[in-house]
Amino acid sequence: MSTLPFQRLVIDGVGLLGGSLGLGAQARGLARQVVGLGRSPERLERARQLGAIQGWHTAPEAALHGADALVLAVPPRRICERLEELAPWIAAGTFVTDVGSVKERIVATAERVLAPGVLFIGSHPMAGSEKSGVEFARADFYKGSACLLTPTAQTPPAAQALAGQLWEALGARLVVLAPERHDTLLAGISHLPHLAAAALMQALDRKLGRPEELAVIAGGGLRDTTRIAASDPELWKQIFAENAPALLEALEAYLAVLQEWRGVLACPVPDMERLGALFQEGHDARQEIRFPTRNSE
Amino acid sequence: MSTLPFQRLVIDGVGLLGGSLGLGAQARGLARQVVGLGRSPERLERARQLGAIQGWHTAPEAALHGADALVLAVPPRRICERLEELAPWIAAGTFVTDVGSVKERIVATAERVLAPGVLFIGSHPMAGSEKSGVEFARADFYKGSACLLTPTAQTPPAAQALAGQLWEALGARLVVLAPERHDTLLAGISHLPHLAAAALMQALDRKLGRPEELAVIAGGGLRDTTRIAASDPELWKQIFAENAPALLEALEAYLAVLQEWRGVLACPVPDMERLGALFQEGHDARQEIRFPTRNSE
Repeated sequence: MSTLPFQRLVIDGVGLLGGSLGLGAQARGLARQVVGLGRSPERLERARQLGAIQGWHTAPEAALHGADALVLAVPPRRICERLEELAPWIAAGTFVTDVGSVKERIVATAERVLAPGVLFIGSHPMAGSEKSGVEFARADFYKGSACLLTPTAQTPPAAQALAGQLWEALGARLVVLAPERHDTLLAGISHLPHLAAAALMQALDRKLGRPEELAVIAGGGLRDTTRIAASDPELWKQIFAENAPALLEALEAYLAVLQEWRGVLACPVPDMERLGALFQEGHDARQEIRFPTRNSE
Repeated sequence: MSTLPFQRLVIDGVGLLGGSLGLGAQARGLARQVVGLGRSPERLERARQLGAIQGWHTAPEAALHGADALVLAVPPRRICERLEELAPWIAAGTFVTDVGSVKERIVATAERVLAPGVLFIGSHPMAGSEKSGVEFARADFYKGSACLLTPTAQTPPAAQALAGQLWEALGARLVVLAPERHDTLLAGISHLPHLAAAALMQALDRKLGRPEELAVIAGGGLRDTTRIAASDPELWKQIFAENAPALLEALEAYLAVLQEWRGVLACPVPDMERLGALFQEGHDARQEIRFPTRNSE
């Protein structure tokens, strides 16, 4: 990056994602000024001390005065209301994006509340960690991860170009897809696995309790299958609530498959052919995926 | 191990598990002779060439003549019938165990068909890999893994002592539990996660197909949650068929939890408290498990 795309980049919410964006933007020279916006002076000041932002405001009008870029990095459930709160102070020509992991409602809200001429596009940088908070922010946090951009027919081409420039400069690989398609894919690829893992731990805990043999017997299969059950409940309940309809559909598909297994297992004499076919189907689908070397979530 | 517990150790089935046992027993000096038994001369000869066994027979009477130890390492569904086939040639005083990963039916069969005085105990060495075949056998294959011993009221104390000596000499940590308890625990801890992972891949494949974005979007969550869906369908359909009743019970518990999630997600307005409580339950149960550093399956 030799050019400087932004004069004044405002980051609303300086936690792990917002803080990493601030550090990365400064490290890559993406903005002349990086300004934090938020509700808690203590957290903003902490982010400033850690170098994630150069200054901060709690008043939107102060932060957004003269801003040509705004990234909303507040928790998922807050993004829509935040868009409504900040809209009056976002001038035409300002580049605006967010980091929410569910897109349809956010994109619809943005297109409804932002002034004409605001350059909005939804982003979903697929970087994350079990940790949260600006203390864990890193300039290279987005490096090697995928960033999903979700333009619509109303998205100004300049918004998509700027978003691409921003995330690619931070090291992310871009994928472009419609908001609805994004939410359907993520419901299956990310949200349903989180639900399946959490439910598996719940079922085992309710059925078996926590017997002392567990720690010795539990193997790599259980460890890996349930790893993401340890994800932050506060964050994930918000993601699930945001994407409830698409997740419900994915869950119905999962339940339908599980009912097939149940039918086979309930036979007095096991139908080995049917059992083998169910396994083979899952096996083949799994072998088909070429997982990227690094992607969190 | 300075003592030599066995004169003639017969291994029935020289694949990954049987072959590794042969290599380990020789490396640790656990038997004067290690003899293979099986149906395919080609596979037996291959195992001999690889050093897993010193000689082999396809005739049980020849292999078991003079034997003081027999380990059944054939595929899970074959162990019971193999016990019946071999029983006539197993002399009183012979130590007998197996490596099956489902125990109740095997132990009951052994106690029914073996002559009085045969020193039988069920074993389940929890070592494994996606690979199969004697080509992947290693002398240290069992090192660091758990080996579950499943004695009953009828198990001769000498059988348990010899099994403990054998598996500990190969580096395994022993856990002793009743066959029924073993099958219930394994249904939850190992078999249900395999079912959940396979079904997850099936549901995603049926619902989403294999879109090109998948390879870019798929993250560590999906990768880990579905890793064991790639397990050998042939082996796992046998394990499931053997443990169908216990697995069905575990699956019912899983379905009950999933139905709770479904109820919450189907509400027009998400009940955040309920959603958070479900997540927290899974989170806390997962955090509670201290996983051993190495255990396959």
